[in-house]
Amino acid sequence: MNLSGVFAPIPTPFDDRDEVDTGRLRTALARFLATPLTGFVVLGSNGEAVYLAEDESDRVIAAARESVPRGRPLLVGTGRESTRATIAASRRAADLGADAVLVRTPGFFKTQMTTDAFVRHYTAVADASPVPVLLYNFTALTGVTLLPAAVTRLAAHPNIIGMKESGGDLAHIGDLVADTPGDFTVLAGTTSTFYAALAVGCKGGILALGCVVPDACVRLFQLVAAGRHGDALALQRQLMPLTRLLGPVYGVPGLKAALRIAGYDLGVPRPPLAPVSDEGVSALRAALASFEEVTI
Amino acid sequence: MNLSGVFAPIPTPFDDRDEVDTGRLRTALARFLATPLTGFVVLGSNGEAVYLAEDESDRVIAAARESVPRGRPLLVGTGRESTRATIAASRRAADLGADAVLVRTPGFFKTQMTTDAFVRHYTAVADASPVPVLLYNFTALTGVTLLPAAVTRLAAHPNIIGMKESGGDLAHIGDLVADTPGDFTVLAGTTSTFYAALAVGCKGGILALGCVVPDACVRLFQLVAAGRHGDALALQRQLMPLTRLLGPVYGVPGLKAALRIAGYDLGVPRPPLAPVSDEGVSALRAALASFEEVTI
Amino acid sequence: MNLSGVFAPIPTPFDDRDEVDTGRLRTALARFLATPLTGFVVLGSNGEAVYLAEDESDRVIAAARESVPRGRPLLVGTGRESTRATIAASRRAADLGADAVLVRTPGFFKTQMTTDAFVRHYTAVADASPVPVLLYNFTALTGVTLLPAAVTRLAAHPNIIGMKESGGDLAHIGDLVADTPGDFTVLAGTTSTFYAALAVGCKGGILALGCVVPDACVRLFQLVAAGRHGDALALQRQLMPLTRLLGPVYGVPGLKAALRIAGYDLGVPRPPLAPVSDEGVSALRAALASFEEVTI
Amino acid sequence: MNLSGVFAPIPTPFDDRDEVDTGRLRTALARFLATPLTGFVVLGSNGEAVYLAEDESDRVIAAARESVPRGRPLLVGTGRESTRATIAASRRAADLGADAVLVRTPGFFKTQMTTDAFVRHYTAVADASPVPVLLYNFTALTGVTLLPAAVTRLAAHPNIIGMKESGGDLAHIGDLVADTPGDFTVLAGTTSTFYAALAVGCKGGILALGCVVPDACVRLFQLVAAGRHGDALALQRQLMPLTRLLGPVYGVPGLKAALRIAGYDLGVPRPPLAPVSDEGVSALRAALASFEEVTI
Repeated sequence: MNLSGVFAPIPTPFDDRDEVDTGRLRTALARFLATPLTGFVVLGSNGEAVYLAEDESDRVIAAARESVPRGRPLLVGTGRESTRATIAASRRAADLGADAVLVRTPGFFKTQMTTDAFVRHYTAVADASPVPVLLYNFTALTGVTLLPAAVTRLAAHPNIIGMKESGGDLAHIGDLVADTPGDFTVLAGTTSTFYAALAVGCKGGILALGCVVPDACVRLFQLVAAGRHGDALALQRQLMPLTRLLGPVYGVPGLKAALRIAGYDLGVPRPPLAPVSDEGVSALRAALASFEEVTI
Repeated sequence: MNLSGVFAPIPTPFDDRDEVDTGRLRTALARFLATPLTGFVVLGSNGEAVYLAEDESDRVIAAARESVPRGRPLLVGTGRESTRATIAASRRAADLGADAVLVRTPGFFKTQMTTDAFVRHYTAVADASPVPVLLYNFTALTGVTLLPAAVTRLAAHPNIIGMKESGGDLAHIGDLVADTPGDFTVLAGTTSTFYAALAVGCKGGILALGCVVPDACVRLFQLVAAGRHGDALALQRQLMPLTRLLGPVYGVPGLKAALRIAGYDLGVPRPPLAPVSDEGVSALRAALASFEEVTI
Repeated sequence: MNLSGVFAPIPTPFDDRDEVDTGRLRTALARFLATPLTGFVVLGSNGEAVYLAEDESDRVIAAARESVPRGRPLLVGTGRESTRATIAASRRAADLGADAVLVRTPGFFKTQMTTDAFVRHYTAVADASPVPVLLYNFTALTGVTLLPAAVTRLAAHPNIIGMKESGGDLAHIGDLVADTPGDFTVLAGTTSTFYAALAVGCKGGILALGCVVPDACVRLFQLVAAGRHGDALALQRQLMPLTRLLGPVYGVPGLKAALRIAGYDLGVPRPPLAPVSDEGVSALRAALASFEEVTI
Repeated sequence: MNLSGVFAPIPTPFDDRDEVDTGRLRTALARFLATPLTGFVVLGSNGEAVYLAEDESDRVIAAARESVPRGRPLLVGTGRESTRATIAASRRAADLGADAVLVRTPGFFKTQMTTDAFVRHYTAVADASPVPVLLYNFTALTGVTLLPAAVTRLAAHPNIIGMKESGGDLAHIGDLVADTPGDFTVLAGTTSTFYAALAVGCKGGILALGCVVPDACVRLFQLVAAGRHGDALALQRQLMPLTRLLGPVYGVPGLKAALRIAGYDLGVPRPPLAPVSDEGVSALRAALASFEEVTI
């Protein structure tokens, strides 16, 4: 499976009664298919996966697989806190058509989440999963870190094919790339350092901004692949105001609001998340408009 | 409902096939009933609640309620990340006999978990819950903090009767007590500052050490109630080596190991948690033995 | 030397040309002498010691000693980053009449400031200082922590007589008291947990609020000494709004502004610190007025 | 003044009696002059500047200027906690021949170090300094951060010509470059992300490793300048084991030990710093040997 390029983490639509709305998901995916994105992720962090019951998760996967044709990679987030539930979710995702699973680190009992614990957890999951496994580290949300020491050991497992790293510490990202084999794919998880992550060897990214401005994100990837570092850096700079608004400020509600501005309808976030305020929508609209003006 | 005194958060037993073992739970509770503990919590952090499927949770509650007679308070942890799932869990817990629910803050999307978000979340839960609600803040595990500004607003809700605060910042705990009405119960969540928390107005505690040395924890509470601060402080100091080992070092696996030393069988932790090493068991055994020697 | 009770850390006055103004210092100290404070500290954190040249420091000490009669303890902050400079400053302070020196941990090279490094540093200082030494930990400002493991070793030195701990972690403070001999004095460094710190065995405090409301701070100390914990806690709660404003919000500029409201003139802070805004002065004035109303 | 390229922060030599040894400094500088380094910094963090008295600082500057010919940039660290002392140190450095001053943020009173405070501080210093000023942010040591909001305002000052940023957050570094004029030089402060920092627009670096392996550091700079990103990344990876040992693990003592292995004698660190243990020296020796083997 080729994981190079840009993946978009698709938000999970909820309707006004707080129900998962797979109709809206299919409509959105139909449109996303026309973009140059390499593939898609459902039930990632941006998919509000932690808010879904298991049966809701299954419905999302099934709807996504029906929309995304085989050949276009569909990754499914299946990380749970327990090893047991992660294995069960990974098996169900595979049954429902996932090409690979993206498994966020468990992180509740932080002091116990040692490198040994992570190696045991991911080894058990990879042993049991019918489809390939990608590791996933997102320290800002989990409070734990999957260190290069763990990743290096796990990269030797034949069913673990890559990793998403959502942090912006480039020394850390560079170490992950350098300390793993060439066929282990490290993907960036934040647009704010996407160019730098590609420069140090990431093979692509799973980027919330990839939903909103897919052409620009894919172009940034292609520019680096072509060795056009100066142009890539210029495009990175143009993306900064948008990425700063989306991630730390408005989060998942911001992503849904930005997609609405861009013509997609992915509903509202599930409580306790609240929709972005009118002021926030205006700020997102202004940032999107500025971006479209400056970019060719 | 009287919440004064010491509650023990009962671990959830797993057998060797990683299945919830309600038989072991009943056996343990039968013995805990003979202690002077005010009441019990199931499915708290120490109950590995984040590792349980919803049907497993229900079986634990049902078994606990059958074991704990009405009149002895049984609190059930029902915090989930989404408001919807928290409400559903609280309703099921009430149906199964919980006297009150203990609702840990959601914390996954940290930057979005503002005071307003917490107020909306807990208000919706308290509106829907058939039984009273206790707030629950555990910053070290969740990475978010339920500030006094939120607690003061929520304490006015007729179905929110108290709070568990697991941190050790005594200025914060003192504020929680001072800024809430007299019939709002603030309970300490860590033995390491139990005496100090009682001194600044907490009405009791939900203490992992309450499972292991219930008589000593209850005695500390009674000494403060009797104004015998010097004796209470002396007992607090005797508890320190044990509490230091259990919490930050060995966590839930340590609690299960300490209970085994004390003659209880609550099985093994669920992966990715691993049982305490032999070295750790020896350290716990030594700390327990030292404690029993010095304490009358 | 009796270190029990409340010490006030006296701010260093600067005039409008940014010069140290020992005249204002003498005037202020003359008035502070009439309070029931046990003694005084000059050149502490609140004395903006890090902003003073060595000759300026010497002038402050000399002026303070002329103002504070022998028999009323005068402590002098002499912590520097290097062991060499700390020793030199401690010797000069002793020559100029300091009764003891208060030595903040060095903290610039954080990863190198191990327990062994602290033990070497303080041992060398205590060996060389003609007057007794108090250790001083203020993690929020220095980013390093003097752990109980270091304090226990240092408390055995005959010229190290006590410690100021400015944090609010009561488990840590309780450990410091429990792990040191009875004649080693642990003093609290923050009013926000002063009652709790006394309850777990601190013998007093060095409190910025002791400059502003000395009678109340001393009374809190006396209430705990008399075993009147309930009254002490009530007074602690009355002090909270003031202590919250002074410390984390307005800092040293706030202390100078509050003292001006209370009738003292200690000039302006030294840049890069700036005087408190008019809005801040109003907030401080309101908090002081409220405090005086409720307190008998 | 051309600031492009690699600068080495020269350690300050101390002899066995803990005295500044300008003889050793001259000897070392004579040898450093033969390297392709752009220029030198004395009295930076690696120069243990916080441990020096003002007269010792002056002797170091004078000796360095006598050794470094005009035309080869000599930067001098003059950051102090107070604005007043920083101005005085900058004037003296200029008198003694500094080409520019490198001014680390004050950071003691962390909550008061706002963007406004930094703008006032650096504006006053730049107004008064006879030679150009470089800003200097090192959050890991100071606990405060000079935000792009402050840097953008300060970059407009005619006497502020650039900045050293010692952190590894590439989004932050990219913002600093993007938000300042083209003639404002942003220099990287850590080798661990040197390649990535150059890729996002830094014009060079002030690198401790530049003392130890100057040819390699300069070559990395030149490779990026030539657009040879792949080769630059390969060299960056070869530097990682060394940079990981030097910075977070062994610090300034490690730098002095590594220089001794490389044939320089810069004496011992000043207490409370301690020389690297024998084990540490072996680790450094092994890392240096490995590096020399793989690098052409």
